[in-house]
Amino acid sequence: MTEPFRTTRRVEFGDTDMAGIAHFANFFRYMESAETDFLHSLGLSVSWTAGGERYGFPRVSVGCDFKRPVRFEDVLHIAVTVEEVGRKSVRYRFDFTRGGEEVAVGRITAVYCRHTPDRGVESLEIPPNVRSKLTGAD
Amino acid sequence: MTEPFRTTRRVEFGDTDMAGIAHFANFFRYMESAETDFLHSLGLSVSWTAGGERYGFPRVSVGCDFKRPVRFEDVLHIAVTVEEVGRKSVRYRFDFTRGGEEVAVGRITAVYCRHTPDRGVESLEIPPNVRSKLTGAD
Amino acid sequence: MTEPFRTTRRVEFGDTDMAGIAHFANFFRYMESAETDFLHSLGLSVSWTAGGERYGFPRVSVGCDFKRPVRFEDVLHIAVTVEEVGRKSVRYRFDFTRGGEEVAVGRITAVYCRHTPDRGVESLEIPPNVRSKLTGAD
Amino acid sequence: MTEPFRTTRRVEFGDTDMAGIAHFANFFRYMESAETDFLHSLGLSVSWTAGGERYGFPRVSVGCDFKRPVRFEDVLHIAVTVEEVGRKSVRYRFDFTRGGEEVAVGRITAVYCRHTPDRGVESLEIPPNVRSKLTGAD
Repeated sequence: MTEPFRTTRRVEFGDTDMAGIAHFANFFRYMESAETDFLHSLGLSVSWTAGGERYGFPRVSVGCDFKRPVRFEDVLHIAVTVEEVGRKSVRYRFDFTRGGEEVAVGRITAVYCRHTPDRGVESLEIPPNVRSKLTGAD
Repeated sequence: MTEPFRTTRRVEFGDTDMAGIAHFANFFRYMESAETDFLHSLGLSVSWTAGGERYGFPRVSVGCDFKRPVRFEDVLHIAVTVEEVGRKSVRYRFDFTRGGEEVAVGRITAVYCRHTPDRGVESLEIPPNVRSKLTGAD
Repeated sequence: MTEPFRTTRRVEFGDTDMAGIAHFANFFRYMESAETDFLHSLGLSVSWTAGGERYGFPRVSVGCDFKRPVRFEDVLHIAVTVEEVGRKSVRYRFDFTRGGEEVAVGRITAVYCRHTPDRGVESLEIPPNVRSKLTGAD
Repeated sequence: MTEPFRTTRRVEFGDTDMAGIAHFANFFRYMESAETDFLHSLGLSVSWTAGGERYGFPRVSVGCDFKRPVRFEDVLHIAVTVEEVGRKSVRYRFDFTRGGEEVAVGRITAVYCRHTPDRGVESLEIPPNVRSKLTGAD
């Protein structure tokens, strides 16, 4: 088991709602930005072009449990863990903390896909070089 | 078992991403707007003031499974079902369809709360008159 | 001078910020959705494909003046006026009112464009049939 | 004239739209985050509590001109300049560049306000200690 990848994110004024806390839907923006940071750290991306074709990791299942409200100017620490790499998919867990205190836990399952010319998407087996990076074997 | 509440939502241009489909995080905005429609249909709200105090239904757990991509100008039909009313919480299911085809299924669990003067929140038992509306007994 | 096109938009919970009012950036989402409604009413769109090519109206200049704060569940009335149709561009004005009271005035200037294969955009003269619709001559 | 304050912002996947570029409304999110960075650098904020009262800088007028499209993973450099400090208001200019190339210029005018107990806002003269920081005299 490898160490989680760690990044941070500040809660912006426009992320809050009238209850004075970060609106729940924004946690998925935070997760996406942490996922991008993580993939960058491996030399990967969430969407890219290769050989004239576009590849990417669209999300098929996402969720988040909220433990404590967070507020404007809070700095969230996000630990990204690869929980499972399937044949075609990868599941990330995002542990959000603030000052050492757990505030939320989210999950994203993304599927490795190629965009087809008719604006559809086709799922593919994750290639060995991408898999070994995601599992930390590389 | 009561019939689901039904509402619609159009995918806006700014809801799409570079993959040409509605960005996944926006489904939580769609769910929230359907939740507001549903609560309005019962004479309730997601946040209100009574007796000088503010009450509401902050979300503690949310999720969404995506079956098919949706695109700009698609009209999504959203069926809202109350799956469970606990002592302090309510869980909604949101079935998204487009032209009769399932595109996503989301869930939100919200907890009945009073906002405390120190900017915290305190969970409360759902009062009988609210409960009977949510369960359709009323 | 033609009559403005009229549409409405409800302020959602997630549109508010910790000041208890709709966050200013969301007015541009409201304008875009009103622009789409307006273009639909003319049989046009903000982005479409014709003859295998993608056309659209990307925005080159936008602004908004805020007169009064608006809150969760407010229903905004939006009047869309075509202020000017240039050779390649169109400028819209959006008058936001709530209960007859002016709350904001926004503007969007969009340029008629074709997307080029290299992911660039090329501005074009607005064709006569589009122009006559925008000016209300049609 | 003081030097502009400089910060950066990465374009996230969810910031893009189906045209493959950052959606125009997101530039106001970028400006707000740069404004927060700038105010932090002066020991100020966009919203705070003092003596049991809430103060802040709600925006009364905003705008943006777009020169070149920006894309996923682009790093935008944002230079924040205080263009004018009025009796009650401050106007910022935000110069966005990418690799030395101008991509957008935005402006925000914000008014110094106190939130009143009835959920209204009252504009106030900017106090001397805040003014001197904004003008760079401090």
